[in-house]
Order: sequence, then C-alpha cells, then structure tokens
Amino acid sequence: MTAANQRSLVPETNIERDQALCESLFTALRDATSDGIGITRESFGAGESLALDIVESAAREAGLETERDAGANLVVTLRGTDAELPFVACGSHLDSVPQGGNFDGGAGVIAGLAILAGLKRDNFVPRRTLKLFGLRGEESAWFGKAYMGSSALFGRLTPDDLASPHAVSGRPLSDCMGDVGADIDRIARGEPLLDSRRIAAWIELHIEQGPVLVARDLPIGIVTGIRGNVRHRTVECVGEAGHSGAVPRWLRRDAVFAVAELITHLDRHWRTLLERGRDLVITSGVMGTDSTEHAIARIPGSVKFSFEARSQSQETLEAFYDLFISECASIGDDRGVEFKLDRRLQSSPATMDPGWVDRLRTAARELGLPDETIPSGAGHDAAVFANAGIPSAMIFVRNENGSHNPFEAMKIDDFMKGVAVMRKVLAEAIT
Amino acid sequence: MTAANQRSLVPETNIERDQALCESLFTALRDATSDGIGITRESFGAGESLALDIVESAAREAGLETERDAGANLVVTLRGTDAELPFVACGSHLDSVPQGGNFDGGAGVIAGLAILAGLKRDNFVPRRTLKLFGLRGEESAWFGKAYMGSSALFGRLTPDDLASPHAVSGRPLSDCMGDVGADIDRIARGEPLLDSRRIAAWIELHIEQGPVLVARDLPIGIVTGIRGNVRHRTVECVGEAGHSGAVPRWLRRDAVFAVAELITHLDRHWRTLLERGRDLVITSGVMGTDSTEHAIARIPGSVKFSFEARSQSQETLEAFYDLFISECASIGDDRGVEFKLDRRLQSSPATMDPGWVDRLRTAARELGLPDETIPSGAGHDAAVFANAGIPSAMIFVRNENGSHNPFEAMKIDDFMKGVAVMRKVLAEAIT
Repeated sequence: MTAANQRSLVPETNIERDQALCESLFTALRDATSDGIGITRESFGAGESLALDIVESAAREAGLETERDAGANLVVTLRGTDAELPFVACGSHLDSVPQGGNFDGGAGVIAGLAILAGLKRDNFVPRRTLKLFGLRGEESAWFGKAYMGSSALFGRLTPDDLASPHAVSGRPLSDCMGDVGADIDRIARGEPLLDSRRIAAWIELHIEQGPVLVARDLPIGIVTGIRGNVRHRTVECVGEAGHSGAVPRWLRRDAVFAVAELITHLDRHWRTLLERGRDLVITSGVMGTDSTEHAIARIPGSVKFSFEARSQSQETLEAFYDLFISECASIGDDRGVEFKLDRRLQSSPATMDPGWVDRLRTAARELGLPDETIPSGAGHDAAVFANAGIPSAMIFVRNENGSHNPFEAMKIDDFMKGVAVMRKVLAEAIT
Repeated sequence: MTAANQRSLVPETNIERDQALCESLFTALRDATSDGIGITRESFGAGESLALDIVESAAREAGLETERDAGANLVVTLRGTDAELPFVACGSHLDSVPQGGNFDGGAGVIAGLAILAGLKRDNFVPRRTLKLFGLRGEESAWFGKAYMGSSALFGRLTPDDLASPHAVSGRPLSDCMGDVGADIDRIARGEPLLDSRRIAAWIELHIEQGPVLVARDLPIGIVTGIRGNVRHRTVECVGEAGHSGAVPRWLRRDAVFAVAELITHLDRHWRTLLERGRDLVITSGVMGTDSTEHAIARIPGSVKFSFEARSQSQETLEAFYDLFISECASIGDDRGVEFKLDRRLQSSPATMDPGWVDRLRTAARELGLPDETIPSGAGHDAAVFANAGIPSAMIFVRNENGSHNPFEAMKIDDFMKGVAVMRKVLAEAIT
C-alpha cells in the first residue's frame, strides 16, 4: 500500500454535492430538534432518536446499508470486498446538552455520512469495510456519566452507571437505554457489543470546543491526545473567623488570603510547566466563602473551592497534583489554615494513534491545508475507543463561542476542509 | 466640680444586684435571638427589635422612662434636675452580624441599663440628665453600610445609603428603617434627629473585638481612637466563561485567577505598609463565583468579592486605596478581565476625647484597676458621635475569640469592672 497506488484508486468526489448533502442534514437536524433557544437531543431520548432517524433516512436514500446495533446506535455500512479485514469506523454522537448547539457531535456524523454517500455515489467498492456510527449518549448532562453509548459498546458500563438517575425524570439510565432498543441484558453483563479486534481504526471529526483554532487562524487541527484530569469537587480551606477590624495581620488565619496565595502559586507552577513544554490546564471553577456566615467586616474562616487539572500526560497530572498537595501543606503552615480535600476523582488521558495522526497531517498537507496538531481539552468518544485498544484519531474544526451553548459557530467551509482530510485518509485506508 | 465633692454624692451601688440584672439580660437577649449556632439580630429587622423590646421592658421595670426616638432607637432616661444642661449619653448597638455573638453591642447597652437602674434604685437624682441609647443598625453585614442608626441621628445618611439593598431580601435600607418606625422623611432630608450641642458626652462600653487585652492580661482598656475604613461592598471581576479543558492558559480570562492575584498583591502591599509602621488591616470577607453558572469544568467568568481597608489614619487608607485601584487596572490589563467597583463606602477615623480618656483612666486607677489605653481596630458608633463634635470615649472589656462569631467569650467579672469604671465617670459627670 503506497500513497501513489491508493490515490489513483480513490475517485474525486463532487464537493458541491457533498456540501449540499451536509447543509441539508444540518438544517434537518436543527429543525427537528430545536427547543426555541438552541437544540436539545436528550441522551437515549426523543431528540436523539429523531436525529438518528434523520441520518438513517439520508443514508438509505444514498443507497447505504443501515442498522441499529445492540447499543441502539445507528450504524451505516459501506461494505468492502474482503470481509476478513477489520473494518474502519468513523462517526461521533448525536445527543446534545440541553439548549446546546447543532454542531457538537452532529458534525462528525454528518461528515461521515457525506464521505460514505460520496463513495457510494461514485460506485467505489472498497476492499475494507467502512462503518459510520451515529452514537447515542455522549453528554454527561443527562445522567452525570459521559460516553455512555461508546462505553456500552465495549462492556464498560458498571451497575452504578446503569443505575444513574436521569437529571430531570430520575429514571435510571438502564431503563432509558432499554426504551430506545439497547440490549440491556448484554450491557448489564458487561458484555462487549463490538469486538475491538475487528475495528482497524476510529476516526472522529468534531468541532473544537475551545478557541485555539480561531486564535491561531486555522480551519482545522489534528488532535494528538485527549486530556485526562484529576479533580477535587470540594477543597475546604479552614481558618478562623474574626472581626475584620480588630485582629492584626500576624494573628489572622484568613481563608481568602490563604486560598488566593494557593491559586497564585498554582498559577506560577502552571506557567513554569507550560514553559517546559508540558500540556496542562488548571481551573478552579467553583469558589466561595460560606454564605451562612460571611460578611464584609468578618475575617473569612472558610473558603470552599473546586480543583481541576487536565493534561494529556498522566505524569504531568501527577507532578502538578504533588505540587498542589505540597502548596496546601506549606501555605497551611504559614497561615494557620487547613486545606481539607474530598475524594480525588480522575480520568485517564488518551493518546491518539501516532500513525493515524501522521496520515491525517499528510493528507492535510497534500490538500494544501495546514497540518497543525492540537490537544483536545474536552473529552470525546474517541477516548473510549482509544482506551479499548483501537487506533484512534480526531480532526477538530474551527468553531467560535465554544460548545454546549446555542452560539457555537462553525463555518461550512472549515467543515468541508475537515471532511476532505477525513475522506482522504478513510478512502486510502479502505482501498 | 472637684472629684472630692462629686464622689461624696454618688451612692455606693449594690454590685450583686447590678450583676444579677446584667446576667438576666444577657440570658434574655441570647434566648430571644438565638439562631441555633450564634445569635442573629438583623439591623432594622426582627431580632434587633426583639432586643430593644427586652431592654426597654427591663428599663420600665426599673422605673426608668423609655421612648423610641425618630431613628427608632431605644432611649432610656434618668432625668436630671437642670433641664438646661446638655445631657450625658451612653449606650451601644443591639443589632448583630448573622450568627454573631451575644456581647458585641449588647454589653454596652446592658452596662448602661445596669448603671441607670442602679442609680434609680438608689433614688439618685442627678443634676444633669443621663440617657442610654439602644442603637439600631451598627453592623455593615446587612446593608454594606455601618453605623446606620447613629448616622441617622446626625443627619448623615445619604440618598445612596438609604437606597442600599438588604443583603438577602434586596429591599432598600429606607424601607427597612421605615418598617421599624424610623422617621424616614426627616432622615431622607438629612435632618439631624439629635442636636449634638445638647449632648455633653458619649460614653460607650464594648467588648474588645481583637485579642490585645487577652494577650496583655488586662480586664479592661481605655480607647484612644477608632479606625476608619474604606470599603466596596461588591467588586465584580468579569472575565470570560469557557470549557475548562478546551481553553489554554494564554487564551483564558479566568476571574478566579485574576482575583487571587489581586488579593495576593494587596497582601504584599499590606505587609510593606505595616513594616513602615502604618496602622492597617485588609479583609475580603465575602467572595464567590456565580452560583447560577459556575461548574467544576467551566472557567469562571465572574467572581464577586468585598473589599475593606481599615486604619486609624485617613492618609494610610487613601494610600492603600490608590494601590488597590492601580492593581485592579494592571491585573485587568494583564489578564483580560475587568474589575467593576460598586460605590465606595467610607467612614472616617475618630479620636476619643482626651479629657474623657483621662477621666476614665483616673476612675480605673481609683477603683484599683489598670488604666491602660488601647486603640480600637473595629469601628463603633462612638466614632460617629465623635465626628459629630461630641466628646466621646470608650471602655473595652477583655473578650476571647474575637467578635462577629458565636464563640466570643467575655467574663462577667471583667464586664463588671468595666461597668464600675463607666458608672463612676457617668455619675460624677451628672452630679
């Protein structure tokens, strides 16, 4: 398999027709699942099922085989001539957060459909089978748990996960999965619904949920890894309350000044690690004095805050976490306060397959596009595929205003560039 | 008026009965305004009104005249024979911070009542009238503004003060003052409710709200001056919210990191000013991210916090305030955030009257007590009386664990020593 002989076998696609198909699908999805503010496609619920139906119907119109798998996901197949070969998979999720945006998840499924439909239209018969997955249940907004659909595929949903109550109705996840047709008995047994050895690769296109591609003026980026994280939901700094006018500085045990110093020191460590080339983001998204007792004229005796570090490297996460713990101890000593930590939570980073990252970068260059790499700060189904041992890769498409909100703004031109890169590597891989 | 002829006219009091009255009043106040953790006597609210009622009822039982003045404060009078003479006033406030302690404010009112009741019991008829004020609205915890009750007495509440919203209900101060019976029309016109020329002196006993008397092993101290302050009730740091995993450090506008840096810089300036011998304390007692949108995995786009600097020197206050403003500007620039300041509130430092300080020290010595002086770090209504031109003085009583918390611990023996000194100078002054 050299690039030369592959390229010769892949037909040129009709980009106008591909784009028209994509645009009509984005419109159909938005119209069908609009909630008046954004779009809502509840995991294992009505909006998500409607989205699967719309994509399935378009796939059939394009002459592609479709089915629902044991996880109730949509699977669209372009069958290859050699059934023995592991298939190549692409796709993304079709659910959304409440009042979310139309592109988060949906863009990756529509990209895949455009590619399969284009190859079918050109009567291209691959050697290796190519499958598109329209996954369910990626968003954590509905049941607290993320990647439910992809986790089910690899037998990775625990009894606790399946018992997770729906944020609104309180119904357990297992019931909601059962309602849309998932094989709950197999899922509850932890039985894989897919044999990961039969999957040659997972390629996922997704809008970037951060501002990096916009800031760097790049239409697309090739993802190198998906950040893991270490978190404490609540750290409490306990000092001593007192009258703000009457306690001199040397007798104070002020929780706000202690936490401010801690955050400032963490910021310094963060900067240092970045300067040394480490991948890291630090956030304390929730912070506050105790509203039952705080006052302008009262030395704050308690501050609670959340801690989150994300990195593509487990080693960097652990190194930063050690710095965090030692800063808590030394600032605690200096200022007469105590930092009380709740349970440490973590999720592992996932590395994208270097071979596929290379293929995507090469394809981008050959198409005259930038081949810049970018880490994924947010989590994606690709992390589940990667951690199941499947070589995985992702393409990010430039997007303004973040995601998980109705204001996400992906330009169709940028999207079509991502589709072109994805089409090129997929076609080469299945030829 | 020599000390010799005054002393001969003042009857010896029955200390046991005085103490029993004080103890029963402390218990009654605590029982009536307990919140399960400390006591809560909301300014111009229910707990404060209850406290006024309890003291008024005890005053009537003692045969004293009582009334509510145009500021809705409790006034208890021991009438003198010479109505032409300016009267001597004593007292303190009856409101508290949320979950505060029973002695802060209450001790000064109860001390005054014990003195007036004791003199009445002994059928002592003074030449000069003695009045006890049970003031409302001293604590800034409820409306951001301190000394509201005493400021109203001297026509010093501005329209902005009167519009200040209640910290919980959001109702303006003027409405809450009106509810408890204050003459809002006069107050709004800035009309003094008391003629300061008719007041010969203001004497206030208060627990020490700091640790100095405990550290120096002194039961009481004579106050020489009161710190003023400059405050912002709410400073909002406005950055930009975003996905915590997806926005790198260089694109962040993180409000928590910006505020942490600001507080850390202010701490450094504070230390420097202390090292140069300035009197200063700095507090940010209320701080928090926006609970309607904050999340562990979301970059905080807004943090609100309170700012307070206190000093005995107006010059130090202004110097520190300038540093605060310039730090807000430079950190705002560096981090792409904006610090939005609400109205600047301030109260001036006050000097206690040297003549009255001398009288209190002399009385202490004559009673065999230490006559040490001490500055007041906390603000007190006495500062408002002093700044209205009324000779004012204060006695501090030793107290453990500070104030504005349920753990304040004043010993009744120390308190009775303060009462004895106060009684001595008051009786001498009205004889």
